[in-house]
Amino acid sequence: MTTVLTSTRHPRVQAVRRLHRRSARAAERRFVVEGPQAVREALRYGGLTELFFTDPDDPLVAVAREQGTDLVQVDAKVLEALAETVTPQGLVGTAPLRDVPLEAALHGAPQLVVVLHEVNDPGNAGTVIRTADAAGADAVVLTAGSVDPHNGKCVRATAGSLWHLPVVAGAPADEVLAVLRRTGLQVLATSGGGADDLDDLLDDGGLVAPTAWLLGTEAHGLPEELVRQADRAVRVPLHGAAESLNLASAAAVCLYASARSQRTGR
Amino acid sequence: MTTVLTSTRHPRVQAVRRLHRRSARAAERRFVVEGPQAVREALRYGGLTELFFTDPDDPLVAVAREQGTDLVQVDAKVLEALAETVTPQGLVGTAPLRDVPLEAALHGAPQLVVVLHEVNDPGNAGTVIRTADAAGADAVVLTAGSVDPHNGKCVRATAGSLWHLPVVAGAPADEVLAVLRRTGLQVLATSGGGADDLDDLLDDGGLVAPTAWLLGTEAHGLPEELVRQADRAVRVPLHGAAESLNLASAAAVCLYASARSQRTGR
Repeated sequence: MTTVLTSTRHPRVQAVRRLHRRSARAAERRFVVEGPQAVREALRYGGLTELFFTDPDDPLVAVAREQGTDLVQVDAKVLEALAETVTPQGLVGTAPLRDVPLEAALHGAPQLVVVLHEVNDPGNAGTVIRTADAAGADAVVLTAGSVDPHNGKCVRATAGSLWHLPVVAGAPADEVLAVLRRTGLQVLATSGGGADDLDDLLDDGGLVAPTAWLLGTEAHGLPEELVRQADRAVRVPLHGAAESLNLASAAAVCLYASARSQRTGR
Repeated sequence: MTTVLTSTRHPRVQAVRRLHRRSARAAERRFVVEGPQAVREALRYGGLTELFFTDPDDPLVAVAREQGTDLVQVDAKVLEALAETVTPQGLVGTAPLRDVPLEAALHGAPQLVVVLHEVNDPGNAGTVIRTADAAGADAVVLTAGSVDPHNGKCVRATAGSLWHLPVVAGAPADEVLAVLRRTGLQVLATSGGGADDLDDLLDDGGLVAPTAWLLGTEAHGLPEELVRQADRAVRVPLHGAAESLNLASAAAVCLYASARSQRTGR
């Protein structure tokens, strides 16, 4: 006989709800994974600590069972209480945090890395992680002062990419720059007033070398002292009347420019 | 002596609040413009119908006065009641709707056009309008079933670009395709399973010709019958493990690829 958890006050439900707070995630080193896409990627690439489900016939429940995941059947009310989203589609789990130390993320010979400096918008940060994955980047680094990549909105915006490439959280910017240099990556800072136009870099083969892209917040960009420490300050050309691009859109243009240059060797 | 409007129940306040609904915007052909950036772009490119402000010394109030805008000083409570955002920063106005007929938007010899098919996410739609502006596109077309570009969240995501290029709303997809063809634009449909890789098109000069990019929703993409009617079905290369790109990121990659090809002639 299967026991179905029906009380939203159950200690296990309360324990998951606490993880919607960053401090609890940091203390317990685990986070909430909502919906089939994230649950599937977690099971494929990292594993879940536990999985709450409403439908015992969901094929992902069988996958979780094979992996020895702690399984708890719940009713729709409890599932809703566990989730941050309105439609977790029958599945909410918890998983070990995904972030890795800086040195581990930049191990080997990385070709393409993204650094987000003090970016606190979870949607933008998550979308950049997804785009970095799509562009074949080796790692994404979030400096200290940035959003926690395990924030629910950020996790959803990554659309599963949080499990596809190493992500570093809370790294001091100075340390990041030092390690990037030691690793032999050229550091390109995006800046609306940058001396180099992205199109000129593409023309000159300036994007063929292993590259780390530095991006700041949409409102304030990168601080001047960080731009100065970069090898180049690069502006994405603005052909119309727009003053700037959205952060994730700028990242997409820069990362795909690098990916193409590195693959064609020009 | 200046009269300051202090009642949130005042008919003028209620009239603005109604405009947060699409039906009221359609009936009155005007929409709400919140915050300094949008107010500034509206004053620069299209004009406001009226402007509510808290600080009479705000320089944008002087600009509006010179243009003969109907000005109403309000207290902070009323401003908050007028706005959808938590921080309208002292300025809320109304302006005539921005959308234009399809034929007007594609008048002349457009080089680069974006068509969003049944895209109902206002953040994504607004970000695409902003990116299209940045990439120098000539127009953005939203087909019937898409979000109203005057939706508050969409307007904010455009970051002022709603005033920078012609936007078409609610155009039937068949009509859009017919007009694009008549205008001599090649029609490229983005599709995860598209036969042509964006990088191959870039190699072959396939993006030099005047181009309309067709993009569908993130969840469902474009319907098969629309993809079939396009000249090519194009996939953005996915180098990592991501299944797809965010809609606005895909648009950024495609539009900047076109902008570069058209500008270099290769």
